[in-house]
Amino acid sequence: MTITFYDYAVAPSPRRARIVLKEKNIAHETQEIDLMTGAQLSKEFRKINPNATVPALKLEDGTVLFENWGIALWAEEIAPNPSLLGKTATEKGLVASWTAKIDFHGTLAFAEAFRNTVPQMKDRALPGVRNFAQVPELAERGFARLRDFLGDLNCQLENSEFVVGDNFSLADIWAITILDACRWIKVAPGEEHQHLQDWQERVSMRASVKL
Amino acid sequence: MTITFYDYAVAPSPRRARIVLKEKNIAHETQEIDLMTGAQLSKEFRKINPNATVPALKLEDGTVLFENWGIALWAEEIAPNPSLLGKTATEKGLVASWTAKIDFHGTLAFAEAFRNTVPQMKDRALPGVRNFAQVPELAERGFARLRDFLGDLNCQLENSEFVVGDNFSLADIWAITILDACRWIKVAPGEEHQHLQDWQERVSMRASVKL
Repeated sequence: MTITFYDYAVAPSPRRARIVLKEKNIAHETQEIDLMTGAQLSKEFRKINPNATVPALKLEDGTVLFENWGIALWAEEIAPNPSLLGKTATEKGLVASWTAKIDFHGTLAFAEAFRNTVPQMKDRALPGVRNFAQVPELAERGFARLRDFLGDLNCQLENSEFVVGDNFSLADIWAITILDACRWIKVAPGEEHQHLQDWQERVSMRASVKL
Repeated sequence: MTITFYDYAVAPSPRRARIVLKEKNIAHETQEIDLMTGAQLSKEFRKINPNATVPALKLEDGTVLFENWGIALWAEEIAPNPSLLGKTATEKGLVASWTAKIDFHGTLAFAEAFRNTVPQMKDRALPGVRNFAQVPELAERGFARLRDFLGDLNCQLENSEFVVGDNFSLADIWAITILDACRWIKVAPGEEHQHLQDWQERVSMRASVKL
């Protein structure tokens, strides 16, 4: 049995796991789950991942990992090089601090802005099995949070090549997928975010994945 | 220099790091940041953690870790026993999958229900530097999500002693802190959640921390 990666090419979330698998050179088959037709909600897919989300990764023994954190921590263990979590305890702590921070201030802010505005996400204000109505106040809040997030990230990148120090890490993968997806909602680093713009150019190539 | 843990005794979020530090027997000093008087927003504390949140952990070299994930991954590296992230790659993957799932479906659902209802959280619908108004629709959504979460967790605990298999892990720490905090908003496992009730009783003692 081979490893099966449940993906959706244009979505920012599975792109994270896709970059991890590519960095680690982990052989796998890809199965595309078309979120635009609601394939993640099908009975068939929910047997694989009851959370009805991608990414998910079915291992050789049938175990299913179902969040980017799960896939990344597994991958770091079976294929330690290149390290994406940091090598020392302090590096690991900082990479995980920043990755979790980006989850909250980046991913969730983007999701608030995106899912509560675009017509395709009507009643899909949250991912998962249950439908939730769009909330216009949340969209507004999401845009405000994204502006803060760009500023924070720009500051952090003033003195380092990557989000955490000199090495490309999970924190860069989390951040670039959000930054790139922000184009959909016309949010982008401005003139005041020169460090962030430079970083985005630097990591875009490395984070480009076509499977 | 010693390790300094920035805590707030009654809040569910720093309780996670507090349990991790206790499990790993990591020596540290504790500094209480009184969230009820807004001490996390003070200039002084924002020099330590610009995100204005607890937990934060200042290491001996002055590095500050600032999210539960960051503190946990650092702790697992410097004090591997008892393992809280799992021993094999698959265990690590599953523990991180569940911990991330609990972040989204548990922590965020609780935060939606709690922060958008109680008067003390007026204009504090989100943690962090910026104020956001409460949104009644979010509270309603949060309560609905919490009901789903209790059901999911109960199912998961039907066949295993802990959230992931036979070992107490980060996933249990994440879950018990939410379950216990749910009492504040009068949400609790019901008769239909017998496995969850048994688990809550089982892990409450282990997760009890007074520093």
